Amino acid sequence: MNERMPVPGPEAVYEDAFGITLSSRIRLARNLRGVPFPDKASPAVRQDVVARVRAAAQEPLPDQRLLAACTPLERQQLFEDHLISHALLEGRPDSAVCLSLDCQRSAMVNEEDHLRIQALRPGLALRVAWADADALDDALERRLDYAFSAALGFLTSCPSNVGTGMRASVLMHLPALVLMGEMDPIVNGLGKIGLAVRGRWGEGTAALGHMFQISNQLTLGVPESRTIEDLEAIVKEVAGHEQNARERLRRERRTFAEDLAARAAGILGAARLMTAQEALERLSELRLGIALGLVRGIGMPQVDRLLREVQPAHLQAAVGRNLTAAERDMERAKRLRGELRRPPKPLAKRIP
Amino acid sequence: MNERMPVPGPEAVYEDAFGITLSSRIRLARNLRGVPFPDKASPAVRQDVVARVRAAAQEPLPDQRLLAACTPLERQQLFEDHLISHALLEGRPDSAVCLSLDCQRSAMVNEEDHLRIQALRPGLALRVAWADADALDDALERRLDYAFSAALGFLTSCPSNVGTGMRASVLMHLPALVLMGEMDPIVNGLGKIGLAVRGRWGEGTAALGHMFQISNQLTLGVPESRTIEDLEAIVKEVAGHEQNARERLRRERRTFAEDLAARAAGILGAARLMTAQEALERLSELRLGIALGLVRGIGMPQVDRLLREVQPAHLQAAVGRNLTAAERDMERAKRLRGELRRPPKPLAKRIP
Repeated sequence: MNERMPVPGPEAVYEDAFGITLSSRIRLARNLRGVPFPDKASPAVRQDVVARVRAAAQEPLPDQRLLAACTPLERQQLFEDHLISHALLEGRPDSAVCLSLDCQRSAMVNEEDHLRIQALRPGLALRVAWADADALDDALERRLDYAFSAALGFLTSCPSNVGTGMRASVLMHLPALVLMGEMDPIVNGLGKIGLAVRGRWGEGTAALGHMFQISNQLTLGVPESRTIEDLEAIVKEVAGHEQNARERLRRERRTFAEDLAARAAGILGAARLMTAQEALERLSELRLGIALGLVRGIGMPQVDRLLREVQPAHLQAAVGRNLTAAERDMERAKRLRGELRRPPKPLAKRIP
Repeated sequence: MNERMPVPGPEAVYEDAFGITLSSRIRLARNLRGVPFPDKASPAVRQDVVARVRAAAQEPLPDQRLLAACTPLERQQLFEDHLISHALLEGRPDSAVCLSLDCQRSAMVNEEDHLRIQALRPGLALRVAWADADALDDALERRLDYAFSAALGFLTSCPSNVGTGMRASVLMHLPALVLMGEMDPIVNGLGKIGLAVRGRWGEGTAALGHMFQISNQLTLGVPESRTIEDLEAIVKEVAGHEQNARERLRRERRTFAEDLAARAAGILGAARLMTAQEALERLSELRLGIALGLVRGIGMPQVDRLLREVQPAHLQAAVGRNLTAAERDMERAKRLRGELRRPPKPLAKRIP
């Protein structure tokens, strides 16, 4: 286990001019030898784990925060950026998160396991993320004694993670497959080959804004390199299906697609109230329109920035204070209007 | 019955700066003495009825059309303008419509009754419409012998019309009552005092675009003047409730109302596909925003013109040819976009 893979070159980043693959993530579950898992540990033991991990992570992950000391807004923001899990949102005592300065590498302490190492990269970059996570894992292992069994691999709180303790996942934007009614068989097919398909924030979240997270389930008996290679191949295949569906959408249902994107832009540029969920949906439709070449005057990076900024905690952080749900919906609409008031125009003349 | 009311002066037209009452209509059911009702009459008899009515109506209603000779599009357009009923849409043989040149007065021949006289006026103008219908009725009666019973009044094919044969109705735009959830008790209350509340195209149609047609049910034992006075009083009361609901909407739920109107304008100015039903709904929301003073750059007359022009047959008549449903949705969206591309702006600054 934990065998070395060559450090990937730039060619390892999949060329995705269509913005289908949004981000790649590697997560490694690790525990300290001879210490009870967080749920079974006393506060004193959990505090000791935090102290040991913080000391070990000082150099690679210098931005260290005790979650109980964070404001709810800070925790929410960490959650929206995929840096802590739903389980840590409440600010559980003796849990922490340690971050690299660019937030691409991180570790949760005393979540389900003592350590949840994470590497996050934009686009389809599983090998790069793996190299990041692996290097961070090595650095921490030099100072920490991991619970490891020669027969099983890394030991984890939940048996489903025993072995590599690795979950590799890719967040994909698959609007055309959804709109063409082709997503359900793909989700079923992926399930049959041992992959999980979830919403943007993982387990139990719906696939809002046509965003799906695809990840491995198996951690036992499969080396990391194999898991990553397999997932990468599958993600490329799904991206190919999405590209194909987009092409058919553009050729066969062009007016429908134009209508969808133009309405999204019209609503984003006009609304006075907008929930986070609706913003996600309308921005997703606009993003599809851009990918199809049906919208001009706005680019995908702007939409991707907005997708991040319209989230509740990011919105409040930008305003600098807590807002009620109604105030958030007004503020979100105002910011979106500010950027989209002049609705983007269709690129080409409508087909007669 | 059929007693005279003084010809109304301009003061009889209710001042409605808020556009709550859209139009007023009087319909009189009449039949020829000794002739079987249309459903029981032979083709020869029905043809004779058409000939006699056409001759009698020559002067007041010179635009006379046999419905079987009209194209389906022409009939649909007559229906959309409330000049023929749903029953005549199919182009039943030996049925006709006779119209004054301004279409404010008309008569259907061989619908359910031999004659259905109609007077139609914009706004709340029941007395004016009654004067129109009554004068037309008198003119026709000079040349036609009506089936009339001293005990019952005018005899009609359906017993529910016996007596005056009159239906008086007012089309109202009641978006605030609907949005504030106050419409259901009003509909129930109106039902209890013998009034019917229907959608824009009468019996069996839903109240699309927040438009409701309120009419009398009773035709036996109540003189026309009383029916009209009662209906007028009730309509003014309902209009008062709507005005009250609009004021509360503007004061207490201003952002919600602004959002509704701004979204409607945004969608109308952007969409590439728009069904007739959605156009009605979005134009209704925009109309409310104008009435509330929340939208500028567009006036209520423009919206009312669009409400008429976006109807399927009007749309095809403007283009000059038959269109498929998909073509209509594209053409409708294109015309709406042409007039609303630059979205109307809110009148006042948003309340902080």
